[in-house]
Amino acid sequence: MKKNSTGLRVRLPALIFALEVVIVVLYVVFVTYDDSANAVLQNNQTKPMENSLYQNYSVFADIQVMIFIGFGCLLAFFRRYGFGGMVFNFLTATFAIQWAILFQGFFQFYHDGKIHLGVMNLINAEFACAVVLISFGAVLGKTSPVQLLVMAMLEIPVFAITEWAVLKYLKINDAGGSILIHLFACYFGLGVTFVLYRPNLNVGHPKEATSYQSDLLSVMGTLFLWVFWPSFNSALTLKGDDQHRAVLHTFIGLSASTITAFALSTILSKNGKISMADVQNVTLAGGVTVGASVDMMISPGAAYALGIVGCIACMLGYKYLSPFLARRLRIQDQCGIHNLHGLTGLISSLAGICAILLATEETYGPSLYQTFSYRAPMEGDPQLEELRKLIPDLEAGLGRSAQEQALFQVAAVIGTIAASAVGGFLTGAILKLPYLASPTDENCFDDELFFDVPQEYDQQEVWSPVLKDTCKTDVE
Amino acid sequence: MKKNSTGLRVRLPALIFALEVVIVVLYVVFVTYDDSANAVLQNNQTKPMENSLYQNYSVFADIQVMIFIGFGCLLAFFRRYGFGGMVFNFLTATFAIQWAILFQGFFQFYHDGKIHLGVMNLINAEFACAVVLISFGAVLGKTSPVQLLVMAMLEIPVFAITEWAVLKYLKINDAGGSILIHLFACYFGLGVTFVLYRPNLNVGHPKEATSYQSDLLSVMGTLFLWVFWPSFNSALTLKGDDQHRAVLHTFIGLSASTITAFALSTILSKNGKISMADVQNVTLAGGVTVGASVDMMISPGAAYALGIVGCIACMLGYKYLSPFLARRLRIQDQCGIHNLHGLTGLISSLAGICAILLATEETYGPSLYQTFSYRAPMEGDPQLEELRKLIPDLEAGLGRSAQEQALFQVAAVIGTIAASAVGGFLTGAILKLPYLASPTDENCFDDELFFDVPQEYDQQEVWSPVLKDTCKTDVE
Amino acid sequence: MKKNSTGLRVRLPALIFALEVVIVVLYVVFVTYDDSANAVLQNNQTKPMENSLYQNYSVFADIQVMIFIGFGCLLAFFRRYGFGGMVFNFLTATFAIQWAILFQGFFQFYHDGKIHLGVMNLINAEFACAVVLISFGAVLGKTSPVQLLVMAMLEIPVFAITEWAVLKYLKINDAGGSILIHLFACYFGLGVTFVLYRPNLNVGHPKEATSYQSDLLSVMGTLFLWVFWPSFNSALTLKGDDQHRAVLHTFIGLSASTITAFALSTILSKNGKISMADVQNVTLAGGVTVGASVDMMISPGAAYALGIVGCIACMLGYKYLSPFLARRLRIQDQCGIHNLHGLTGLISSLAGICAILLATEETYGPSLYQTFSYRAPMEGDPQLEELRKLIPDLEAGLGRSAQEQALFQVAAVIGTIAASAVGGFLTGAILKLPYLASPTDENCFDDELFFDVPQEYDQQEVWSPVLKDTCKTDVE
Repeated sequence: MKKNSTGLRVRLPALIFALEVVIVVLYVVFVTYDDSANAVLQNNQTKPMENSLYQNYSVFADIQVMIFIGFGCLLAFFRRYGFGGMVFNFLTATFAIQWAILFQGFFQFYHDGKIHLGVMNLINAEFACAVVLISFGAVLGKTSPVQLLVMAMLEIPVFAITEWAVLKYLKINDAGGSILIHLFACYFGLGVTFVLYRPNLNVGHPKEATSYQSDLLSVMGTLFLWVFWPSFNSALTLKGDDQHRAVLHTFIGLSASTITAFALSTILSKNGKISMADVQNVTLAGGVTVGASVDMMISPGAAYALGIVGCIACMLGYKYLSPFLARRLRIQDQCGIHNLHGLTGLISSLAGICAILLATEETYGPSLYQTFSYRAPMEGDPQLEELRKLIPDLEAGLGRSAQEQALFQVAAVIGTIAASAVGGFLTGAILKLPYLASPTDENCFDDELFFDVPQEYDQQEVWSPVLKDTCKTDVE
Repeated sequence: MKKNSTGLRVRLPALIFALEVVIVVLYVVFVTYDDSANAVLQNNQTKPMENSLYQNYSVFADIQVMIFIGFGCLLAFFRRYGFGGMVFNFLTATFAIQWAILFQGFFQFYHDGKIHLGVMNLINAEFACAVVLISFGAVLGKTSPVQLLVMAMLEIPVFAITEWAVLKYLKINDAGGSILIHLFACYFGLGVTFVLYRPNLNVGHPKEATSYQSDLLSVMGTLFLWVFWPSFNSALTLKGDDQHRAVLHTFIGLSASTITAFALSTILSKNGKISMADVQNVTLAGGVTVGASVDMMISPGAAYALGIVGCIACMLGYKYLSPFLARRLRIQDQCGIHNLHGLTGLISSLAGICAILLATEETYGPSLYQTFSYRAPMEGDPQLEELRKLIPDLEAGLGRSAQEQALFQVAAVIGTIAASAVGGFLTGAILKLPYLASPTDENCFDDELFFDVPQEYDQQEVWSPVLKDTCKTDVE
Repeated sequence: MKKNSTGLRVRLPALIFALEVVIVVLYVVFVTYDDSANAVLQNNQTKPMENSLYQNYSVFADIQVMIFIGFGCLLAFFRRYGFGGMVFNFLTATFAIQWAILFQGFFQFYHDGKIHLGVMNLINAEFACAVVLISFGAVLGKTSPVQLLVMAMLEIPVFAITEWAVLKYLKINDAGGSILIHLFACYFGLGVTFVLYRPNLNVGHPKEATSYQSDLLSVMGTLFLWVFWPSFNSALTLKGDDQHRAVLHTFIGLSASTITAFALSTILSKNGKISMADVQNVTLAGGVTVGASVDMMISPGAAYALGIVGCIACMLGYKYLSPFLARRLRIQDQCGIHNLHGLTGLISSLAGICAILLATEETYGPSLYQTFSYRAPMEGDPQLEELRKLIPDLEAGLGRSAQEQALFQVAAVIGTIAASAVGGFLTGAILKLPYLASPTDENCFDDELFFDVPQEYDQQEVWSPVLKDTCKTDVE
């Protein structure tokens, strides 16, 4: 076996079996059921229909559809890399969730010497998985499944630590994950792709193109993400009116960014026609932009405006920033995650800070101290007793002011970007190690390298000599 | 810019930005949260898990799938108009929902100077959106996105007014929307396509054909509509047994029409084979036919019979009525919405009237006066007090008899058809205005006009000279 | 009409209309609403939001997606049999559910002279439908829709009787249906395909191949099954912690089998590449393997191990057992249901028995007597009174020991396999009767036989002479 060979036969199974041994051992030693899934903890006071399962399962199922079908179809947009997009997404997601159950488990669900597992852990793990899949977008078509598993193996712990530190020490508002998910995923992915820079691909690649069918499949993925995004953004809010607002804002933000994307696509395209790449990506910008303030009383109009602004930034990013990053900064961002998750994440973080600064008891009533729990008075503060007359089960907070919190939000943004960029850079360096079956430049974006492909696959090439020639000059 | 040019670069963005300005202003001035999404209205009596979100969100998500993925795939059945079918559906639906939130908001959810927004508004707006998408089916492939947005812009207000008038003044039973949604959408669409008549298309068009892949994609759309139709038909019923029956009847009706469609398809096709167009459309007839009586005690057997009858009418419509309408009445109904929504809607309305006439207290118990709320005695009637001993929270009604109500149902059918046909006719006239980028006859059913298409798209033509020639004679 | 002709025009409608007459008559005479869907049984004590609809509908919708879209796409993997896979699945499933409502109705939901119909019946009928669809996998591409309907017509009653006998008299644990669904479906399907043996197909068939698009579509089906499998496996468990565990175990089992499948696929393929057939099928093995013990306290680690073991058995089955069965035992198992449902079902049954033997009150608390209801003391046993102090509504059981129950589980496995194999054999014999439009060997795996296909369909053949020749030697 040559160290630069791209064969999977030994490497992929070896890696997977090694990981499985680790996972099984950790499961057996450390993982048990959480209280609502443990038979011995039920008693005659337990009401089965109040099991936490019923509060979380439908959200979990919606996010499953986003992860496996939404992302899977969306990433299948290359004409000869549909298997790669959809199937590597399947493999990477499945592993990332298992891995995240363990790492998030140790940081967030560990007590009495055990990780306590319930559907809520799965939702959290799917968020971590989304992080990996977004980062995957930066290197789509240029990495082997071995590299993708190694990337997930490294990204999940970095993410779990960052998430834990930010949530425990900074205690930020970020219900839709604009900071922890989208910014982290984006800068991690950019870090990886920076190291994996392939200069030859900057002049275009004959296989880096879509087909009519692959474009349709990819739009289906977009639609699944669009439809269930309100579930994603509202999964981790407080129950009740907070979650209700999160659904409304996400829907409004997505709607605004979608129709804006059509307008901008015709303005900015060469011939005044709609670009399918814009339909597949830019329409979704609003879902990210409303994320950091999605559960707050920002007003429906503000959600609408956020959708428009996010869409404009995302579109301009695709048009002007991505080519610049590739040519000048050696950052080849294959799916443009910096536009859809980075720029929009930054806008969202800023909007979140504004919403925090504007939040008053007049607008929120006493539930201000639940949505912004760090603003609740500290234990022992007589004001806390006053508030508890209104909200009996109010938990003590940190007594922060809105201005103080704004600084914590800024710290979270900076810290997350720093951690993810460094983590991505180091991960990229590891992915350059030999034996990871990295494809050659020529074999990028080509399913034949890693899959048994049906026979007519090859013949597409023979049948389309015109395509073969024109592609090289036309791909941007 | 020539007034008959089909370029989108100026027109589409201009229209979208103008609409967005209107929407943002109206949102900012008029839209606020409804009580269950407003933080300041929650207090220590509020039980978060009883928020209306949890009663409505899963139905909302199901209908989202129908609107964006079900309709989107179903309308992608043309071989060279898959982008158009799926993407214009996306654009039109997204705009229609936003627009409907405002118009339905003013008519149904307006008080204290504000439109109060919650997930229930979104469900209602998605029903209005379904109306637009059904009408879209009549003109699929023959309209520009600019025309589609204008159509949605005009159809939504006409629909919102009709809906408001019918619900407020006629107070009809129509849980599944057979009258207000399917009949309205159908006759509006026929009105539009009547005005947009293109004589040259009556002899067939070389691009008006399906491909193997487009047929499969379209069947997927059918399946998504089929699977979630029970959610659609039961979304606006009373909670409890009424909603339970709505689910059962819809499932039974769809099942009956599906297997009937296969039987009729082989009988009526030229060569005894199954037609994919029938699988894509006629199978769904039962979902419409049970609509107007979907929450009543019609018995499972009657739901089954309604599915069969609706399917037969729909199939005969496709076979005999649609060609007649196109040749003799200048009504080119591209997807046959008159068969799937018009004929079935009429049958459903009739069945609803029968069910109303047959409804007795023996069958329904005192809940007769809830399912048929207009039959409850008027305020002050001593009979109302009697009934309130059985149902404490029974609302006063109009004291109508079943026979009286039958007349109101008839009035609703006639009124809805009249309003929609006139509205559609006028809308069609407006769509004929210049500057709306209407495609030429030659460019109909062709994605290349409005989309950047992948390169091999063109070559299909070169590769299939046989197809090009035979199509002209073979398309019906 | 020749008796061996494959024309559907008379046969399919005749069969469908005959079945519809039977169904309508049985519906009218025997089917009424269950208590929670019957208006007259609601009173002022009824809480609408506690209607059983709300406990079951979302699970029902999830399983609908699996049946119609998951199976439909998965079975569309042949390059020229996509219509057949997806559309015959649609037809067969729709009929099977209607038929199962009646047969399961008579056995499980019949009292006071009526079948009582609610959403719970639909869920049960969809399980029966899944049985038929799995069996369909054994004869995919080699049967006419007439044969498929006859198969469903015969399989449903045999299944309903077996299910009733096993549940009523043996009272087994099998929440995920590993025994009653997967083993039954597998051996019924093998029985049918044994009788329908076509020796000419053992040397390969030029149309028995996939295409790039059909492989992608089939993976989408796999993903839909994967995503909603936890709903399937947990649909019929006890509510509360039992259902919670069922979700967790199914997710863990599927995850483990998925990544294992990738490892094994590269090891066992000729060239070290990933096989799409493995991605489409073997990844799902874990969902079956955890089935029989899915609601028990087996521990997350054991669920993980079960996923791995099931995947290995399934993969080795595809590689070595299926070719052996086809060549030596005349069992042509088209989709390899013996690997994905038979071998895994046996492993699952064994694991279930182990879990039963290991179940103690220490692990389960008093709810041991609910999850394993047959272990509860019999009525009159003083121990029952003791337990009712802990669980007031505990039902009396059969006082069985774990060891006794293990024998009942073994009896259920043997009985189910025997009943299904014999039923399948006899059904196969009936399917060989003339007039059922069975395709000739040459016409197998070809949509053109039963469908109006788009025109370019034919030309694929002309365009790919290389494929036509090589296929014969290359198909395994």
